[in-house]
Amino acid sequence: MTSTSSATPSSESPTVSRLYEAAADAFGAKGFHATTTRDIASRAGLSPAGVYVHFASKEDLLYQLSREGHTVARDALARAAARSSAPAETLRSMIGAFARWHAEQHQVARIVQYEFRHLSPEHQHEVLTLRREIDAVVRGVVDEGVASGDFEVEDTHAAALALLSLVVDVARWYHPGVQQTPEQIEQTYGALALRLVGASPHPG
Amino acid sequence: MTSTSSATPSSESPTVSRLYEAAADAFGAKGFHATTTRDIASRAGLSPAGVYVHFASKEDLLYQLSREGHTVARDALARAAARSSAPAETLRSMIGAFARWHAEQHQVARIVQYEFRHLSPEHQHEVLTLRREIDAVVRGVVDEGVASGDFEVEDTHAAALALLSLVVDVARWYHPGVQQTPEQIEQTYGALALRLVGASPHPG
Repeated sequence: MTSTSSATPSSESPTVSRLYEAAADAFGAKGFHATTTRDIASRAGLSPAGVYVHFASKEDLLYQLSREGHTVARDALARAAARSSAPAETLRSMIGAFARWHAEQHQVARIVQYEFRHLSPEHQHEVLTLRREIDAVVRGVVDEGVASGDFEVEDTHAAALALLSLVVDVARWYHPGVQQTPEQIEQTYGALALRLVGASPHPG
Repeated sequence: MTSTSSATPSSESPTVSRLYEAAADAFGAKGFHATTTRDIASRAGLSPAGVYVHFASKEDLLYQLSREGHTVARDALARAAARSSAPAETLRSMIGAFARWHAEQHQVARIVQYEFRHLSPEHQHEVLTLRREIDAVVRGVVDEGVASGDFEVEDTHAAALALLSLVVDVARWYHPGVQQTPEQIEQTYGALALRLVGASPHPG
């Protein structure tokens, strides 16, 4: 079982993409602490020196992978939010697509979520800033739906957190053997998102 | 920051409880693979030999901790489900209390969730059986609410999974610095659970 290459769509070097996949596999199998740069290099078919051409350290690799993953997610969510549709449709497509991504990219997503504590304090801070931006995009759509009367939410912060919890947890329970396809997960989670904000699951 | 002792309410030996706490702290800090039996022993104020009096190996400790955590959770949920109240009230109190537990016991909960892959195949199987029992208890209450007309759910399995996702993810994002108290989390998540199953958040 290997990570798929679309995990890191914006990284331009194929070697860097390969190293991201190798790192996600190695961290997933052994955890960050027990993984050596040599493990990652050998999974990517490189020498350890080949890793250091691109990354200063194992922590730097985890950081770049986390930053990349969060940036791609933030940008995709912001693009979805910027489309001029009704808040319910925006939220549904946004949360559905994000849930699907967490199924398709469950290995990378797990690393990004569960190995966060192994980043340096400075890198944790940077990744937290990206996470706050992701929260803000989701909260913005919820606020919009509350303002338009489409959603009924008392605590926007709690609702946005719950929406992200639903999505993030897909990476924990998903494995390629589950009955739902990523497409079905997209559908289901889009509908669940509307329920959480008190909108009809079948608008229009 | 240490785990609190109520993590393992049914373990009778104080030394075993101390070892569970020490293991949760050590696995949380370094991951399962990079943690040694010596690390755990020294956090618990014991010699490595003192660990082996109670546990055959580091994996056995993780297994017992996971089994204990899941068993306590299953029994608490089953007790809540057995109380003769309306399905909405049962679901609300059940999910609320479980969310609160994930906040209060976030360190143990993280270990149990994130280090699962490090259990032996046989132990994974046993823990999965307990997880299925937990799923079944939650699904039973959802089914009951659908049958009574209190809930409106198309896919009971997906709804139960989403309810558990909301709760489990509390252990990921919760830390003692967050603004919500565990009591507020209990309230919020009880109400969110009712939304997810299409019940009114303010029944009665």
